Amino acid sequence: MTVDIQRWAVKVEYDGTELVGWQRQKSGLSVQQVLEEAAEKLCNNQYKVSSITAGRTDSGVHALGQVAHLDFPAHLPFNAKKICDGLNHYMKPHAIAILQAAQVDLEWNARFTAIQRKYRYIILNRHSRPALNTNYVWHVRKVLDVGKMYRAAQQLLGLHDFTSYRATACQANSPIRKLDRFEIYQKDDLIYFEPEARSFLHHQVRNMVGTLKMIGEGYWPEEQAYSILQAKDRRAAGITAPATGLFLTQVIYPIDPFIE
Amino acid sequence: MTVDIQRWAVKVEYDGTELVGWQRQKSGLSVQQVLEEAAEKLCNNQYKVSSITAGRTDSGVHALGQVAHLDFPAHLPFNAKKICDGLNHYMKPHAIAILQAAQVDLEWNARFTAIQRKYRYIILNRHSRPALNTNYVWHVRKVLDVGKMYRAAQQLLGLHDFTSYRATACQANSPIRKLDRFEIYQKDDLIYFEPEARSFLHHQVRNMVGTLKMIGEGYWPEEQAYSILQAKDRRAAGITAPATGLFLTQVIYPIDPFIE
Repeated sequence: MTVDIQRWAVKVEYDGTELVGWQRQKSGLSVQQVLEEAAEKLCNNQYKVSSITAGRTDSGVHALGQVAHLDFPAHLPFNAKKICDGLNHYMKPHAIAILQAAQVDLEWNARFTAIQRKYRYIILNRHSRPALNTNYVWHVRKVLDVGKMYRAAQQLLGLHDFTSYRATACQANSPIRKLDRFEIYQKDDLIYFEPEARSFLHHQVRNMVGTLKMIGEGYWPEEQAYSILQAKDRRAAGITAPATGLFLTQVIYPIDPFIE
Repeated sequence: MTVDIQRWAVKVEYDGTELVGWQRQKSGLSVQQVLEEAAEKLCNNQYKVSSITAGRTDSGVHALGQVAHLDFPAHLPFNAKKICDGLNHYMKPHAIAILQAAQVDLEWNARFTAIQRKYRYIILNRHSRPALNTNYVWHVRKVLDVGKMYRAAQQLLGLHDFTSYRATACQANSPIRKLDRFEIYQKDDLIYFEPEARSFLHHQVRNMVGTLKMIGEGYWPEEQAYSILQAKDRRAAGITAPATGLFLTQVIYPIDPFIE
């Protein structure tokens, strides 16, 4: 038996600190599990609800503007406010919040319709350890040269084989990705890394940041980011930057489903 | 017996969430207790060390740039790095960090030499509850009119009797204070309130923000902030905004002791 369905897109914010990442894991609580269980409660637990997301973030990674879609039986009397407030109610007390909800066509897919993903990575670059925002930054003591890191990052723009910058466990069929932008700037003692692409490989952002940090501290020359790319070997690149500093900030679609 | 002393100014950052505020309390851990105990460990627990602070923040209030001074026996072989790193080491794992340390004259006093204090209060103004930064904002659902709040705040500038805006338990001799600036601005869904004065009364910032919020949501007209001031009665003013959104951002001295 098939049921007629209604599809809802949701914009999701979460603090990844206590979560095992987007995908369900036996080892702990995931965004997917909390969201789907809340969606099922919204259906009085009479239906199974599954979700598809734009970005399967790792354990500890945060999101300001993650997007997912959920399918519900068509006959349920839902509207955007009910989806948003209802999911937020049932997801308490977990650090996950729905910011917006919008009904979409059944052809629309949070993952495959997305044309661009934006991430932000934050390094706190100062001598003293942080007292505030400890879960939202990577604390690096050594003074980093932002100009060097910026110039190195620009060499990664364009269509490349990113084998050196993806996790060895990455399951994507192809290591080819097109990096469209990579802004790097400093405000007081915070350094922001903002890469943008249609899609990223597993650990790609954190591996690029880890390599750039080693360039910024003078361990490698700025040309190294590009030579590492050419090596097509994960062992050539730098360390994987910790998950704490990473935020999925925005997912872009041909038409923004959340514009009212 | 009196001992020759050396006096050190320290710039302190802290997350007030788990602390009972600056001052020592039987009810829990204070910044003062953590700092003084770390200072005593730095002296191998052979001397008592007491501190004086520029701003005795309340429980739950945070600081980005609190300033205090500590007196140590003159013969101990200290320098800025040793004070800073040593205190940070002994204050672990508490959410308190020394950002800078500088030796000062014995006439210099963190509290009395200060000529200006700056605070920041942050309201998250959106429908959905926050998933991130939950301890660093006051979440207000109703849309606030920033222009109205800004104009109301400007009416509080200058020398006034702030009785209506201080805690009834406030122990300051005089309710007269001079409010020098009060910036209010919005970035995305965050509204920033930044008052600046030589000194503030107990709860003054939180009571002003609580009142402005009621003006911003349309409960009161914008003239109300000034009529409340004229009433000289705490009961005339609005609610006390919660501690979570408040940060002591900066303390200003005639000469910045931390400039190297």
